[in-house]
Amino acid sequence: MCSRSVASKTPVGFIGLGNMGNPMAKNLMKHGYPLIIYDVFPDACKEFQDAGEQVVSSPADVAEKADRIITMLPTSINAVEAYSGANGILKKVKKGSLLIDSSTIDPAVSKELAKEVEKMGAVFMDAPVSGGVGAARSGNLTFMVGGVEDEFAAAQELLGCMGSNVVYCGAVGTGQAAKICNNMLLAISMIGTAEAMNLGIRLGLDPKLLAKILNMSSGRCWSSDTYNPVPGVMDGVPSANNYQGGFGTTLMAKDLGLAQDSATSTKSPILLGSLAHQIYRMMCAKGYSKKDFSSVFQFLREEETF
Amino acid sequence: MCSRSVASKTPVGFIGLGNMGNPMAKNLMKHGYPLIIYDVFPDACKEFQDAGEQVVSSPADVAEKADRIITMLPTSINAVEAYSGANGILKKVKKGSLLIDSSTIDPAVSKELAKEVEKMGAVFMDAPVSGGVGAARSGNLTFMVGGVEDEFAAAQELLGCMGSNVVYCGAVGTGQAAKICNNMLLAISMIGTAEAMNLGIRLGLDPKLLAKILNMSSGRCWSSDTYNPVPGVMDGVPSANNYQGGFGTTLMAKDLGLAQDSATSTKSPILLGSLAHQIYRMMCAKGYSKKDFSSVFQFLREEETF
Amino acid sequence: MCSRSVASKTPVGFIGLGNMGNPMAKNLMKHGYPLIIYDVFPDACKEFQDAGEQVVSSPADVAEKADRIITMLPTSINAVEAYSGANGILKKVKKGSLLIDSSTIDPAVSKELAKEVEKMGAVFMDAPVSGGVGAARSGNLTFMVGGVEDEFAAAQELLGCMGSNVVYCGAVGTGQAAKICNNMLLAISMIGTAEAMNLGIRLGLDPKLLAKILNMSSGRCWSSDTYNPVPGVMDGVPSANNYQGGFGTTLMAKDLGLAQDSATSTKSPILLGSLAHQIYRMMCAKGYSKKDFSSVFQFLREEETF
Amino acid sequence: MCSRSVASKTPVGFIGLGNMGNPMAKNLMKHGYPLIIYDVFPDACKEFQDAGEQVVSSPADVAEKADRIITMLPTSINAVEAYSGANGILKKVKKGSLLIDSSTIDPAVSKELAKEVEKMGAVFMDAPVSGGVGAARSGNLTFMVGGVEDEFAAAQELLGCMGSNVVYCGAVGTGQAAKICNNMLLAISMIGTAEAMNLGIRLGLDPKLLAKILNMSSGRCWSSDTYNPVPGVMDGVPSANNYQGGFGTTLMAKDLGLAQDSATSTKSPILLGSLAHQIYRMMCAKGYSKKDFSSVFQFLREEETF
Repeated sequence: MCSRSVASKTPVGFIGLGNMGNPMAKNLMKHGYPLIIYDVFPDACKEFQDAGEQVVSSPADVAEKADRIITMLPTSINAVEAYSGANGILKKVKKGSLLIDSSTIDPAVSKELAKEVEKMGAVFMDAPVSGGVGAARSGNLTFMVGGVEDEFAAAQELLGCMGSNVVYCGAVGTGQAAKICNNMLLAISMIGTAEAMNLGIRLGLDPKLLAKILNMSSGRCWSSDTYNPVPGVMDGVPSANNYQGGFGTTLMAKDLGLAQDSATSTKSPILLGSLAHQIYRMMCAKGYSKKDFSSVFQFLREEETF
Repeated sequence: MCSRSVASKTPVGFIGLGNMGNPMAKNLMKHGYPLIIYDVFPDACKEFQDAGEQVVSSPADVAEKADRIITMLPTSINAVEAYSGANGILKKVKKGSLLIDSSTIDPAVSKELAKEVEKMGAVFMDAPVSGGVGAARSGNLTFMVGGVEDEFAAAQELLGCMGSNVVYCGAVGTGQAAKICNNMLLAISMIGTAEAMNLGIRLGLDPKLLAKILNMSSGRCWSSDTYNPVPGVMDGVPSANNYQGGFGTTLMAKDLGLAQDSATSTKSPILLGSLAHQIYRMMCAKGYSKKDFSSVFQFLREEETF
Repeated sequence: MCSRSVASKTPVGFIGLGNMGNPMAKNLMKHGYPLIIYDVFPDACKEFQDAGEQVVSSPADVAEKADRIITMLPTSINAVEAYSGANGILKKVKKGSLLIDSSTIDPAVSKELAKEVEKMGAVFMDAPVSGGVGAARSGNLTFMVGGVEDEFAAAQELLGCMGSNVVYCGAVGTGQAAKICNNMLLAISMIGTAEAMNLGIRLGLDPKLLAKILNMSSGRCWSSDTYNPVPGVMDGVPSANNYQGGFGTTLMAKDLGLAQDSATSTKSPILLGSLAHQIYRMMCAKGYSKKDFSSVFQFLREEETF
Repeated sequence: MCSRSVASKTPVGFIGLGNMGNPMAKNLMKHGYPLIIYDVFPDACKEFQDAGEQVVSSPADVAEKADRIITMLPTSINAVEAYSGANGILKKVKKGSLLIDSSTIDPAVSKELAKEVEKMGAVFMDAPVSGGVGAARSGNLTFMVGGVEDEFAAAQELLGCMGSNVVYCGAVGTGQAAKICNNMLLAISMIGTAEAMNLGIRLGLDPKLLAKILNMSSGRCWSSDTYNPVPGVMDGVPSANNYQGGFGTTLMAKDLGLAQDSATSTKSPILLGSLAHQIYRMMCAKGYSKKDFSSVFQFLREEETF
């Protein structure tokens, strides 16, 4: 999926070298792509400059020097600024360029950006990732890609250097949609697993035995069989390590906010989804923001005191 | 697990010959156990009488003639009546009898019954089932068993004739607890799957593709990969057959009511669980009571009209 | 409503001399009723013994010496024990006795007790109170009374000595029902007020001004105009005093548990009611159990930290 | 509050002559203000043209001819178009103009518009209304006004012709914030009232008596004492007229969507608020969209069928 011949590779632009963008960009380098780098925080670029990559001073400058650009930014606002801002990509984007946004943002914003990019004669694809920093380092991310199908192969060439799984989802915005829907269901089943395990324990069940029963029954889900939130049930998951590492509660709250916005604008009822959003919202305010999202078990299990 | 020698088998009492009890009792017959039968509705016994089994006129009479009894009743109230009522089992139970309740009821009630049974020098086990009428017919039920561990082998001898999976869960009441916890998580992940699929479809995703993405990601659950609620995604499930058959919304609402009661009495927070309860409650009042519980997708997807 | 002539008054039994029962019983004394006293904790009776009232050693003994009895107990279980226990009222109750239960319990339990009392030829009424310890001391409680209407005047004679408001609600159990429904709506509107005030403050509104606007608009409710949960908006309410005093979160959680149970058994959907229940449940586990129930504002307003 | 001298009045622009805008504009006419009229639907302007008012062909044209403009539009998108669109107000707005937006929109959008207006040297105020078409006709609307305090008197001069209550709420956006918070609390207490009344009725209480008890207790709220949702309890409210008229479910769902968006962007937990949003969302999809929002009682009371 990922070409190994280095000789003829043209530079790839990379905007946003944070926790995720940094290892992703490095994987492109490993595959021989010269990079044109920009980040609002100059410090984030230093490592790449030292490695010989070219650092420029705005997204517009990236667009001037590269006709394939990957953006990896924390919020919709940052993405809009990088594309449509005063020194944004759109100021100098070349016709035929391929712009891939791997940020997790509102699909409605992705569609807006796609329209503006299209007006300039370029191509936009949304390609949010699933998998955390570890998967970014090892090149094992999953990319969910939305955009014109004819361009998917071109996107795949680059994304395949950073991820082991590149899935075509449909028109622009569907990459975001797929990610949002997955994460909403993930949040719901994680909280559900935590509630069921906690209730079972209070009713006298052994946690390991309960997990085993759920996992061979219809309650089985990824949160129960692969990432169980109850300390002592599984090894090698955040619950076995005081909820360190993993996928932070803050990030889950952010994704649920996007699901909420999309559901409101499409008038889709999400009763459990919006309650899950509120629960992660509360957890962020009660000291759980930096813990893995499976810490909802800990949040719920606290005993009443008198 | 299930002895095939017929010669020396002593009679087994069976109380409650409804949709589930009927095929369960027949499986005991197939394995050579003579039955002592009772049901509040005499018609339910006729078939067994015709087959040569002995029909008696009260639970007490069953207890007089059999020292192993299985009860399969619809509610806590029915179970209490069968055990502690004016003509209940406890009126004539023999010392050392083994009483197995396969009804799905409040675990607190199971514990109460166990205490009363113990006072009479007999043994009580709760052994609710998972799997519907089909599994009852084919002898493929799962039994979740709570009670004294020493007696588990004796229970297994009988239950193994009716189910393919007999799981020991711990002290009395833990069989019920395991079932309740599983079904609560099932309800939550089913509604979550329905919400996520519906949102994704409204955001432009193809349902089959979305299901595939969820199933290879962290949103994966039994409701998404084995029993998908969206028509057209899978074959051989109720959503492919207008939500006929399967596990009815009314039954799910009942089990969620038990989860709610257990959570209230143990002061366990179940935010999603109690909202799921309310959703199935509403569905029962909006024409969904006889449909499979995966029809929550249909319930949620109705479009707003103006 | 409350006769002042002392001469001919016959003794009144009083069972349960806790925080509420103690001042209630004293108000009966003030009105000249000799008391027959019982409490499971002998210390709770001492004060009354010193004042010359007769202390006995079981509910049955109370029933032997008094034909009008008031019970004021913390839970359904305590009430059942006081009536139907081994030394309960029913063991020695006299025909024609009037038994008034002012405990807040499940209306289904009140109905059960009423049936048993009726079998003994006596009369049972449920008469839960609204108003806290302060109202109990000043004789300003509200009693919501369920039972046979013909007996209401007799109940009123006693209850009018302890409360300023005695409301007839209908058949047995409706006193409890009225209290439960009121407190469920109270919990919902209190949490709603807290959410609306918190959201408004974060959107830049001055809390006092916002309260004023709500109170002249359709958002007006007792929780916004009489018992506002935001510190600084009103004087003389728990929010002005670090949420000390008032109606404790634990008690609200208990009443919501009763509402939940009643709703489950009558299959009544209470979407907001059951979420309110879960919220107060969580608050009890997060250090709010002893605070006034308006502290839900404080619970919700905590800022997210990173 | 509203000047009656006709002689010197300068024209007022009015954009958006729908159900609400139409009677509002007429009240300005009655007070002697000449109008400059625009609506995207020319038919909506005809009545005013016939009455001698000036109709123009774009918001920009309104801004050219009037230095005080009122906008009354259905959604954020319409408001943005009217201000910032290709032929929007901002294209020709005069320095020192006073632009008052009475639409109910996201307060964040109001703030954005205010910034753009300010850049042009003009003044923007948000002034959403409470009260329906009836109040618009009789000039009894309530306006909640956000903006620079120095300009409030000027706004009040116009708004006082259309409403009986003009409340200054603070900086730009706080008018919207106040309305959103009020309506969210209204939705919560209405659903709460419906749940409490329904539960009480199923527990055997008479609806009128229950309403009376709530209204003299801590459950009292506008929805219980002024706009009771149960048919037969009050006269002259939508519940007495098959939920015709009043404040439509669709409009409530819209306002709750705005509350949801504001809460998500300010990270404010609204557990009941977002569940209320989902409930009105569902009602819109189940045939209640055109009924008054108090029809939630009807929605919840449907009995389970088997």
